[in-house]
Amino acid sequence: MSNAVEQILANYAGENPGVIGNLRRLLSTGTLAGTGKLVILPVDQGYEHGPARSFAPNPGGYDPEYHAQLALEAGCNAYAAPLGFIEAVAHKYAGKLPFILKVNNSDSLGGPDEPCSALTSGVEDALRLGCTAIGYTIYPGSGLRNEQVEALRELIAEARAVGLPSVVWSYPRGEGISKNGETALDVVAYAAHIACQLGAHIVKVKPPTDFIEQKEAQKPYEKVAKSTLAERVQHVVQAAFNGKRIVIFSGGAAKGTPEVLEELRQIAKGGGFGSIMGRNAFQRSPSDGAKLLRDAMEIFKNA
Amino acid sequence: MSNAVEQILANYAGENPGVIGNLRRLLSTGTLAGTGKLVILPVDQGYEHGPARSFAPNPGGYDPEYHAQLALEAGCNAYAAPLGFIEAVAHKYAGKLPFILKVNNSDSLGGPDEPCSALTSGVEDALRLGCTAIGYTIYPGSGLRNEQVEALRELIAEARAVGLPSVVWSYPRGEGISKNGETALDVVAYAAHIACQLGAHIVKVKPPTDFIEQKEAQKPYEKVAKSTLAERVQHVVQAAFNGKRIVIFSGGAAKGTPEVLEELRQIAKGGGFGSIMGRNAFQRSPSDGAKLLRDAMEIFKNA
Amino acid sequence: MSNAVEQILANYAGENPGVIGNLRRLLSTGTLAGTGKLVILPVDQGYEHGPARSFAPNPGGYDPEYHAQLALEAGCNAYAAPLGFIEAVAHKYAGKLPFILKVNNSDSLGGPDEPCSALTSGVEDALRLGCTAIGYTIYPGSGLRNEQVEALRELIAEARAVGLPSVVWSYPRGEGISKNGETALDVVAYAAHIACQLGAHIVKVKPPTDFIEQKEAQKPYEKVAKSTLAERVQHVVQAAFNGKRIVIFSGGAAKGTPEVLEELRQIAKGGGFGSIMGRNAFQRSPSDGAKLLRDAMEIFKNA
Amino acid sequence: MSNAVEQILANYAGENPGVIGNLRRLLSTGTLAGTGKLVILPVDQGYEHGPARSFAPNPGGYDPEYHAQLALEAGCNAYAAPLGFIEAVAHKYAGKLPFILKVNNSDSLGGPDEPCSALTSGVEDALRLGCTAIGYTIYPGSGLRNEQVEALRELIAEARAVGLPSVVWSYPRGEGISKNGETALDVVAYAAHIACQLGAHIVKVKPPTDFIEQKEAQKPYEKVAKSTLAERVQHVVQAAFNGKRIVIFSGGAAKGTPEVLEELRQIAKGGGFGSIMGRNAFQRSPSDGAKLLRDAMEIFKNA
Amino acid sequence: MSNAVEQILANYAGENPGVIGNLRRLLSTGTLAGTGKLVILPVDQGYEHGPARSFAPNPGGYDPEYHAQLALEAGCNAYAAPLGFIEAVAHKYAGKLPFILKVNNSDSLGGPDEPCSALTSGVEDALRLGCTAIGYTIYPGSGLRNEQVEALRELIAEARAVGLPSVVWSYPRGEGISKNGETALDVVAYAAHIACQLGAHIVKVKPPTDFIEQKEAQKPYEKVAKSTLAERVQHVVQAAFNGKRIVIFSGGAAKGTPEVLEELRQIAKGGGFGSIMGRNAFQRSPSDGAKLLRDAMEIFKNA
Repeated sequence: MSNAVEQILANYAGENPGVIGNLRRLLSTGTLAGTGKLVILPVDQGYEHGPARSFAPNPGGYDPEYHAQLALEAGCNAYAAPLGFIEAVAHKYAGKLPFILKVNNSDSLGGPDEPCSALTSGVEDALRLGCTAIGYTIYPGSGLRNEQVEALRELIAEARAVGLPSVVWSYPRGEGISKNGETALDVVAYAAHIACQLGAHIVKVKPPTDFIEQKEAQKPYEKVAKSTLAERVQHVVQAAFNGKRIVIFSGGAAKGTPEVLEELRQIAKGGGFGSIMGRNAFQRSPSDGAKLLRDAMEIFKNA
Repeated sequence: MSNAVEQILANYAGENPGVIGNLRRLLSTGTLAGTGKLVILPVDQGYEHGPARSFAPNPGGYDPEYHAQLALEAGCNAYAAPLGFIEAVAHKYAGKLPFILKVNNSDSLGGPDEPCSALTSGVEDALRLGCTAIGYTIYPGSGLRNEQVEALRELIAEARAVGLPSVVWSYPRGEGISKNGETALDVVAYAAHIACQLGAHIVKVKPPTDFIEQKEAQKPYEKVAKSTLAERVQHVVQAAFNGKRIVIFSGGAAKGTPEVLEELRQIAKGGGFGSIMGRNAFQRSPSDGAKLLRDAMEIFKNA
Repeated sequence: MSNAVEQILANYAGENPGVIGNLRRLLSTGTLAGTGKLVILPVDQGYEHGPARSFAPNPGGYDPEYHAQLALEAGCNAYAAPLGFIEAVAHKYAGKLPFILKVNNSDSLGGPDEPCSALTSGVEDALRLGCTAIGYTIYPGSGLRNEQVEALRELIAEARAVGLPSVVWSYPRGEGISKNGETALDVVAYAAHIACQLGAHIVKVKPPTDFIEQKEAQKPYEKVAKSTLAERVQHVVQAAFNGKRIVIFSGGAAKGTPEVLEELRQIAKGGGFGSIMGRNAFQRSPSDGAKLLRDAMEIFKNA
Repeated sequence: MSNAVEQILANYAGENPGVIGNLRRLLSTGTLAGTGKLVILPVDQGYEHGPARSFAPNPGGYDPEYHAQLALEAGCNAYAAPLGFIEAVAHKYAGKLPFILKVNNSDSLGGPDEPCSALTSGVEDALRLGCTAIGYTIYPGSGLRNEQVEALRELIAEARAVGLPSVVWSYPRGEGISKNGETALDVVAYAAHIACQLGAHIVKVKPPTDFIEQKEAQKPYEKVAKSTLAERVQHVVQAAFNGKRIVIFSGGAAKGTPEVLEELRQIAKGGGFGSIMGRNAFQRSPSDGAKLLRDAMEIFKNA
Repeated sequence: MSNAVEQILANYAGENPGVIGNLRRLLSTGTLAGTGKLVILPVDQGYEHGPARSFAPNPGGYDPEYHAQLALEAGCNAYAAPLGFIEAVAHKYAGKLPFILKVNNSDSLGGPDEPCSALTSGVEDALRLGCTAIGYTIYPGSGLRNEQVEALRELIAEARAVGLPSVVWSYPRGEGISKNGETALDVVAYAAHIACQLGAHIVKVKPPTDFIEQKEAQKPYEKVAKSTLAERVQHVVQAAFNGKRIVIFSGGAAKGTPEVLEELRQIAKGGGFGSIMGRNAFQRSPSDGAKLLRDAMEIFKNA
C-alpha cells in the first residue's frame, strides 16, 4: 500500500469500493504509481479541433494505436479519448492501460448557440470497453449550463453505480465571460469548485493567469497570493475542497519544451495533482513526445 | 417528547411518519432541540458566489469538513450544502448531524437568461448520503417560474415517498421585480405563501424591508403593521399559513455582530422559527463564528 | 335518489362509475344536496394575487383551516384550493367536505411572457389527499394555448382513469383579447364551449357582460338576447352543450352584498348551475361570509 | 365532527388523508354515521358458495341491484362484493353508498390444494368504480400463506398510494387447524392480530367460540375470560392492537333472528366495532332483511 | 464522536454514508450511545407465537404503544417489530426512537412445509415509516434456504441503495438439524458466518450451548474453548468475521431475572455486541421490564 495514495483515497471515503478501486488503479499505474500524482495523455483534439490541426504536425497520431502505445510506453497513469479512439484499441490495451472514456465532445464545425458538448458515448460503453473512468466537459458560464449540469448529475450517478469514477473537464465559457476571463484565477478556481460540488472525483482545469475577471471578486483576491503560477495552482487546489479532490491541469496549446517544463514545475510546486498533456506530447515526434511525458513524470515524482 | 415540537408537527398531520420523523429530528437536534426553533448552517456560497468570495475571509472554510464541524460543535439543528460538500463529510457525520442536501444551485459565472438554478443532485443522493431533508430554490418572478415549480413538485413527491421533508428557498427575482422589491414586505410574504402552497415543509426567505413593491398591494398593506422587522416577520409568518408552516430567515451578506444579533432578536420577536446563517458564521474566525451561532441560539431559546 | 341530480348525471353517461360517483358526491353534499345546484368556495387568491391582498381584509383567512371550516359550516358543495391549503386540512376534512384540488396556479410576481399557470400538483396528490375532483385553469387566447390544452388533455385522461372528474376554469386572456373582451358575452360563451369540448365535466367562467369582442361575432349576436345577466347566463349555458355540462359562475372581486345577491339571482334565473364564490365570502367577517354563502344557496335552491 | 369517529381515526395517524378520508366516509355513512360503529352488507356468497345456495332462499338476491338497494335503504355503512356485482350497480350507487371491492375470491368448485383465493379485481378497478375501500381474504394456516401475505402486502401499498383503506377478512384454515379450531378463541385472536400486523385498516373475523386450539396456548388462555361471546370479542379486540384497529365480526350461516340479535348484542357488548352480515340479511325477505340490519344498527348505536 | 463507535464503523468502510449513518444512529441512541454496544427491544412475538401467548402475562403489551414507550424510556438503542406495530406508533416516535422494520414474519398457525417466513413489508415501508434499518429472518437448514437467501440478497441491495442497513435473524432450522442442534455451538457459529457472508450489517443469533451438532465439526471443535457461554459467544463473534460484524444475541423464552442477567454477563464477557431482548422485557410488569432492560445496559456498559 502506498501511503500517498491511501491518504488521497481517504478523502473519497463514502464512495463504493468499485469507485475507490478504480481511483486506486489510476493512482497505481505507470511511472507515477504510488506517488499520488498523475500524468494523463488525452487525445480528443481530433474531435475538438479537427484531425489535421491535431495530427498533421506528427502524422503518426492519425492512428489511434499511436496514442495508446505512447501512453503505455511513456508510463502514463491513463489515456483519455472519445469513443472511437478507445474502441479502436480497447481489445488490445484494456487491462494494461487505464482508459478514461470522454463521453461528451464538441467539434468546431458548429453547434448550438451556447457552448454545450454532445453526448458521444456513455457508461455502458465505458464498461464494454474496459475503461477505468468516464470524462465529461462542462462549460460554466454557458447559457446551457443547467442542461449540462443535469446531464452530468445523471452520468455520475450511473457511473458510480457500476464503480466508475468521473473526471470533469471544467472550462468556463459563455457570454458573460471575457476571453481572458476563461483562464482568470477567480474563474478557474470557481470552475474547479463547481465541478467538485457536482460530485466530480477528478477535476481538470486550465492553468490560471493572474487576471481577475469578476468585479465582485476583485476585493477578496487582493488577499490571495497569485503572482506565480505555483501560487495560483495552490489557490485552485484550495478551491477544490482544500485539496480533498484531485485537480489536474491541462497544458493547452503546444509550446516550447522549456515553457512546458517550467509550467509543470509550477503546477507541481503549487500542489497540483498532475498534468493532462495532449498536444505537447503527441504533436512532437514519438521519442520527443515520450520524453516530455517522462520528464513531466519526473517533475511530479520529485514534487 | 417536547410539547413545542409536537405542536408544530401537528400542523403537518397527513404527512407520512418518515417525513414527520425527519422534521422531528431537525427539531430535536442541537442546542435548540425541543424548543421548536432552528438555527441552520448553510454553505452553498462557494457554489453560488465563488470560492474566494466565500472563503477567503476565513480560509479554513475551503475545507468541507470545516463547516460540518462548525455546525456540530456550535449545536446547529442542521447543515445545508450542495452535493460535493455533503459527499466530502457524510460518511463521518451522517447519523450525528442532520444534512439538508441543496439539490439545485446557481453559480454566478452565467446561465440561462431567466433566473433558474440547475439541478445538481437528487433524492437518491439524499438517501445515499444519509440526509434528513432536501433543499430547493425557486425564484418567483422568473420567466422560468413554471419550470421551477414543476420540477419542485416532482421533487417533493419523490422526497415524500421516501420520508424526506422539503425545504424551499423562496427568492423573488425576475424582470418584473425591482432590486428593492426582492426584499419588499409584500413580495417576501408572497414568496413565502407560494412556497407553502407548493407543499414546502420549511420555507426560507430573506428578512423583509418595509418597502411595498406591487401597486395593487399598496392599499392592503396600509393596514399591516410593518415599521419594525419583528412586525414584518410576524406578517410573513402569517402569510405562511398563519404559522402552520415553519418559516426561517436568512441573514444575507456578512455584517457587524451587533447588527446580526439585533436582526435575530427581531426575527425571534416576530415569531420566526429560526435563522439560516451562513456567511455571518463561516466568514468569521472559528471561535467567533461558533460564538455567533450560539448567541443566535440563545436568542431563539429565550424567544 | 334525487331526480335533479340523476338527470344531470345522465348527461355524463359513458363516463365510468368513479367519475359519476364523484360528480354525484359533489351534487349530494351540503345545503344544495340533491337540487342539482352548486355553491363552491374557492381559495386560490393567496396564490394568484398574494396573501395580504387576499386575506388582510379578514385576517382569519391566512389560516388554511378557516376556509375548510367556512365551507363546511356554510354547507358548500365543495372547497377548491391549491395543494398547500388542501394538505394543511385534508387529514381533518377528507371524507366530510369534498375537495377540488386546483392543480395549476399562477402568481402575479411574474412568469412566462404569455398567460400560463404552473402545474403545482397532480392527480396522485388528489388521491393521496382524498379529493373529489381536480381543477385546472386554461387561458383561451394565450400564445401558450396549445401547451395548456395538451396538458389538460393528459390530466383529464389521468384523472378519469382513477375516477376523478375535472373542473376547468376557462378564462380568456391574451394579446388578441381586450380587457373588456375577457368578460364579453361572445368570449365567455366561447370559453365555456371550448372547455366542454376539451372534456371538462364542470366549467367555471366569469359572468359575461353584454359587450361583444369579436368582429365576426357582432352579427350573430344581434339575435342573442343579452340585455340582462340572466339572458347572458342562459346563452353561456346553451354554449356549454345546451345545458348538458355543468357551468358555474365566479363572483370576481369583492363587492357589496346587494350587488352580489342580485348577480346570483340572475345566474340562477338564467339556468346557471351555481356559483363559485371566493373573495366575496372569505373577505367578509366569518359570520357575514357564511351568511352570504347561505343566501347564495337559498337563491339557487329556489331557482 | 363526531368525537367517536375522530378518536378511532387518531389510531390511524400516519396514514395519508386519502385513506383517513375514506375511513371517515365509512364511519360517517348510514344510520350508524358518527357512532364509530359499522354494519356492512357483504355479498360474495354467490361466488364463494354458488348462486342457488346463496340466493334461492330469497330469489331477489340473484339481481345485483337488490343488495345495493338493501344496503342503502337499510342504512348500512358500506356494501362489499366482488367485481361483477359492483360493476353492475356502480354507475347508479357510487357517491351514495360506499363500496368495498372484494378483490380476491374463492369458489367451491375446486382450486389449489391449499386454501388460496384468486385475485379477481384490483385497485384500479376500485378507483374506476368509485369504491371506498378494497377487501382481501387471507387464510392463516394455509400452506400458501406466504403467497397470500405477499400479495396482500403489495395490494395494501398500492391501495394506500391512491387513498384507499384495506379491509382484511382473516379466516384461519389449513392442515394444521381443526374444523373447530377455525373459530377457536386463540386462533381467531391470532388471525386478527396477524391481519393488523400486515397493515389491515379494518379486520373481519368470525365470532370465536371458547375452544382453544393450540397446545401452547392452553396455559396463557387460562387467564383470559372467555365464557361469554362478549368476553371473547373483547379479547379479540385486545389482540387487534388493544382496540386501535377496527375489528368487525361476520355473522356466518343464516340462523334464527333471536340468535342473530343475541350474537350482535354480545359483539357490541364486547367492544366489537360492528358486524358484517350477509346471508342473515339477504336470505330473508326484503323487509325482514332490512329490518334485521336496522335492528343490528340499533344494537350498536346503543352499545 | 465516540471512538468505540467509529472503530466499529470502520469495519463497514465501503458502505455508503446513508448505511454508515444509520448504523451510527443505532450506536448513538439511548443509554448505550457511544459504547459500541446495543440493547434492542424486539416485539414480533405476537405475530410469531400469537397475541395471548405473548401478551397475556402483561396485558399492557397488547397495545403497540406500550413497546415503543418501553424501548424509549428504558433507553434502548432501537425497537424492532413487524409492519403493523411500527405503523401504529411511527408518527409519534419516528425521529426519536430508531425502528428496525422486521420485513418478514412467520406465524405458528401453519404455512409452507419448510421453514420460511412470509414477506410482510419492505424497504419502501421502512422509508415511509422513518425506520433506521430493516430486519429479516433466514432459516439456514431449511429446504427453502435458497429462496430465502435470494430474497434477502435483493432486500439488502434495495435497502443499501436508500441508506438502510440490514439486520439478519439467523435461526438454523430444518430437517437435517436436531432440536438441540438449533442452538449447538457449531450451528450457531455457522449461522452467524452465513449471515455475514450474505451481507448482513448486524447479525442476531441465539446464545449457543456447548453441544456440537455436525459430525464433521466434532474434531475442529475439540480445540475451541466452549465450556462457558462467554467462550462460546467469543467463538461466534470470531465466526462473524473476527468481530468485524456486529453480532447480537437473543434472550429466548422468558425466564428468571438472575438467569437472564447471568446470560447477559456471559454475552458481554465473550465480546457480544449486545442483546435483543423481547419476552423477558415486555412480559414483565412495566417497571420490572424497564429495570431488566436497564440492568442489561449496565452490564454491557461496563463490559
